[in-house]
Amino acid sequence: MTDKRVAAGQSGRVRGTEQRAPEGKERLSRSGGDGDESAGATAAPGTRRPGGRTARTRAAVRDAVLSGLADHGYPGLTVEYVADHSGVHKTTLYRRWGGLEGMVADALDMAGEDTWTAPDTGSLEGDLRELAREVVDSFTDEVAAAAPTAFIAAAFQSERAAKALHAFYAERFSRCEAVVARAVERGEAAPDIDPAALVRAVTAPLLLRVFITREPIDTALADQSAAAAVAAARAGAFTRR
Amino acid sequence: MTDKRVAAGQSGRVRGTEQRAPEGKERLSRSGGDGDESAGATAAPGTRRPGGRTARTRAAVRDAVLSGLADHGYPGLTVEYVADHSGVHKTTLYRRWGGLEGMVADALDMAGEDTWTAPDTGSLEGDLRELAREVVDSFTDEVAAAAPTAFIAAAFQSERAAKALHAFYAERFSRCEAVVARAVERGEAAPDIDPAALVRAVTAPLLLRVFITREPIDTALADQSAAAAVAAARAGAFTRR
Repeated sequence: MTDKRVAAGQSGRVRGTEQRAPEGKERLSRSGGDGDESAGATAAPGTRRPGGRTARTRAAVRDAVLSGLADHGYPGLTVEYVADHSGVHKTTLYRRWGGLEGMVADALDMAGEDTWTAPDTGSLEGDLRELAREVVDSFTDEVAAAAPTAFIAAAFQSERAAKALHAFYAERFSRCEAVVARAVERGEAAPDIDPAALVRAVTAPLLLRVFITREPIDTALADQSAAAAVAAARAGAFTRR
Repeated sequence: MTDKRVAAGQSGRVRGTEQRAPEGKERLSRSGGDGDESAGATAAPGTRRPGGRTARTRAAVRDAVLSGLADHGYPGLTVEYVADHSGVHKTTLYRRWGGLEGMVADALDMAGEDTWTAPDTGSLEGDLRELAREVVDSFTDEVAAAAPTAFIAAAFQSERAAKALHAFYAERFSRCEAVVARAVERGEAAPDIDPAALVRAVTAPLLLRVFITREPIDTALADQSAAAAVAAARAGAFTRR
């Protein structure tokens, strides 16, 4: 059992988050990072004090959680590990986050607290192609892929992580729907199109390959995926049921 | 940490494979089940003796592995657990499978040793719709979903499981490509279509929702997914690059 902890190709490299830039490179979690003074406003229950130290503590815990998930997977993650790697006392961890599941869920919440917006290139196909390419860039970058990979894996073991992941993607995809709304305004798409289905169709073939069939993805595949989704949209396949 | 072991909605119920029919209900692993006399022919290294007892041992180990993955996840799976639940001695387990990773990989290999063939309804859209509906049926059936869910989760922790999963899906999707080959013969699809991309596009939006965004799937979504893939194929989006 040499590679128990890994998905070596995927998440092993985060080990030692210390060496990462505090903000990581996660496309899916472009949060303000350490010292983000706004973090308090959307903090987890129990972390009411806004800004400064609380935000830094929260980010340190998030980094420790990510590092632990990458090293040991969710079932091997312990409060001791998070305490050791974040420098935050166990008592504080339990008081603020309730336990490990709360820490993982909060780390995912933080990933959603960013200012990412969907591409705006002026055309539906351009936007979707750019979106698909961003997915490829994120998940072929080992550092950027580590956090989302760890969260997706954790969701298999923790129902609370699964719910947080669901919420993260629901919010993320709702931002992507701006692309479809603009296409409808431009007359590129019918008003009765189902934007949720369309934006998921673009990214699904990429994420399938990364996390399920374990196949490589590249820009050509991103472009194919975007072209397929646009063609299907034009043919009315995503008309709202 | 009450639900550490779960993905409760997904795999918790397999706990105690003892109660399952020996062959399970897995659409993705319609293997011959216990006593499959052909198993020896494609057996893992070290299990040369064909048929009979070897096949039964292999199936018992497979069942114990599935049960353990569902209960504890890959990082919590132990050789002791497999020995206890399969009735196969630890020494034998080590000798035949080398260790846990070998057992997980072999269980996945067994899932691929079935006679499943892709639907043949007479039309491309009919076949793809049927295929998508089979995916929905499999993954909304808790018992049927347990094995593939456990394998997909294990692939995050074990590189060998990830490789076995990759091999499983490569083979499975290659069977699906028969649908596209028939469509080309009937003149429903262009000869330069990329069948691998097309069959993945049909199932990707479904598997994305089950395993990543954690959203429900249903027959209507299966039909939408098939219709979208067919429309994209007709528009040339899957033309071989």
